[in-house]
Amino acid sequence: MKKKYILAIDLGGTNLKIGLLDLRYKIIFKHILNTRKLSRKEQMICAIVSSIDNIIKEHNLKKESILGVGLGVPGPIDAEKGLVHYLPNIPGWKEVNLKRILEKRLNLPVALDNDANVMALAEFRLGAAKGSVNAVCLTLGTGVGGGIIIDGTLYRSKTFAAGEIGHIPINETGPKCNCGGVACTEAYVGNTRIKAAAKRIFGKDIPLEELSALAKRGNRKALNLWNKIGERLGIGLVGVVNLLSPDCIVIGGGVANAGKILFDKVRAVILERAMKVQARHVKIFKSKLGNDAGLIGAAVLIKEGI
Amino acid sequence: MKKKYILAIDLGGTNLKIGLLDLRYKIIFKHILNTRKLSRKEQMICAIVSSIDNIIKEHNLKKESILGVGLGVPGPIDAEKGLVHYLPNIPGWKEVNLKRILEKRLNLPVALDNDANVMALAEFRLGAAKGSVNAVCLTLGTGVGGGIIIDGTLYRSKTFAAGEIGHIPINETGPKCNCGGVACTEAYVGNTRIKAAAKRIFGKDIPLEELSALAKRGNRKALNLWNKIGERLGIGLVGVVNLLSPDCIVIGGGVANAGKILFDKVRAVILERAMKVQARHVKIFKSKLGNDAGLIGAAVLIKEGI
Repeated sequence: MKKKYILAIDLGGTNLKIGLLDLRYKIIFKHILNTRKLSRKEQMICAIVSSIDNIIKEHNLKKESILGVGLGVPGPIDAEKGLVHYLPNIPGWKEVNLKRILEKRLNLPVALDNDANVMALAEFRLGAAKGSVNAVCLTLGTGVGGGIIIDGTLYRSKTFAAGEIGHIPINETGPKCNCGGVACTEAYVGNTRIKAAAKRIFGKDIPLEELSALAKRGNRKALNLWNKIGERLGIGLVGVVNLLSPDCIVIGGGVANAGKILFDKVRAVILERAMKVQARHVKIFKSKLGNDAGLIGAAVLIKEGI
Repeated sequence: MKKKYILAIDLGGTNLKIGLLDLRYKIIFKHILNTRKLSRKEQMICAIVSSIDNIIKEHNLKKESILGVGLGVPGPIDAEKGLVHYLPNIPGWKEVNLKRILEKRLNLPVALDNDANVMALAEFRLGAAKGSVNAVCLTLGTGVGGGIIIDGTLYRSKTFAAGEIGHIPINETGPKCNCGGVACTEAYVGNTRIKAAAKRIFGKDIPLEELSALAKRGNRKALNLWNKIGERLGIGLVGVVNLLSPDCIVIGGGVANAGKILFDKVRAVILERAMKVQARHVKIFKSKLGNDAGLIGAAVLIKEGI
């Protein structure tokens, strides 16, 4: 049998990554474009199509050897129809049937899901959640996204909107959240909220990497801030642990790089506040696939026909 | 083919109900014992066995015509092994393999689960959640229990402890909860908490039924109290709605009898604070099967081999 391949696309607010993977999810080739330069929807779709055409040519591939094109997109979607409802950080996308458009232009099967679900699939198949049956994955960034694996299957729900771990309220009253809610976990631990808190504490703008570095060097103020972030994230996760009793929770995204300080606090809060059986069972892992999770998860969509 | 039957047991802190059902879940006969009079574990097991023997005799049944005995028990269990870990409100039960004991004494197949899961199964098959694919059911009582149906299947998790909707924290700090946690939904809306709040407000003990009646007659203080309870329950459910995007949430148990006041507030809070797609999709129902849910759900365990 001839060797088969999958094309995978990780569409982000900053980068558009296109990868060629084999059926063992090895990334053979990766191409990165700047999303900001593709401000119009049509430009982005053309860039995707021509990049894929180039990859096929350069690698001397036959269309028959490509199983399909998987995409992870940063916004709410209808995975069944292949519809992108809108992209919060990329203007101009509204009810776009990206699956239909790309299938027509590429003459290849296309599947898509939101980036958090795609990341969850990748970590579940190849990453930190491998071997689990029920897993919850979250990405800490400007937004706090999530994906849920139930009985070994990605749980999408009828609305395809399930998994919003960042939007569990942790207080009756509190800061307004971007989602329209109040006191959601994201309203405390999203990147912009952390940066704003750091500015209040240090009196100047501090990038998150520096905030992590400061804490690792023992800076008291930075340590206290990360502890508070870990505590609040932990309280949000107590609800998830009591409700779903997952085998593991995988935490990825930029903020996860704060590392041990953050993870230790999250674990401590869960052990302290969640119900004993669930708290002792759940493992809290850092994501394993890092920046490649998006491409790998998009390839899983195709290979497993999800 | 001869007519087949199921025996169902709903074991509660106050009552032990034993029912004979047909395969369409019609309750043909029901027998109720006072749990408090069966204070020792062995007494209760004997009462179950002799009640079942009597039902079989009185209805002139052959053992071959009985599919099995299903049980709902008020505490954490291992449904696979048929083990009762313990019963918070009935002393003397610790790691009891009730399935093995009853199968030996009755010579019939036995299946069990906790009462909240059994109620969820009943409402899903025959009650308010019928026709849903993803549903969340909760019972408001002294404790706030819950059961989750995912893709048409009862979600148990590896620990069999999933579904603890009452133990989603709704504040970072707050009252201690019976589960060992802090500021769980149950710590605000459990029966005893509501009664304590009513006593503070009215200066005397008021049964919940009266508190509901007062609100229905327009008593301002009672209305305010039920509104606050609805608000807090609603905030806990906002997390569930954003996380799982269920098709419906079914609310049962004594407190649910507060009726329209409570349900209106819960719906308003979800529409106001949950994410739009999930909030518009989810329906909030009152449980339909009432006190029979326990027997019916226990019968579902047997008929569907769950």
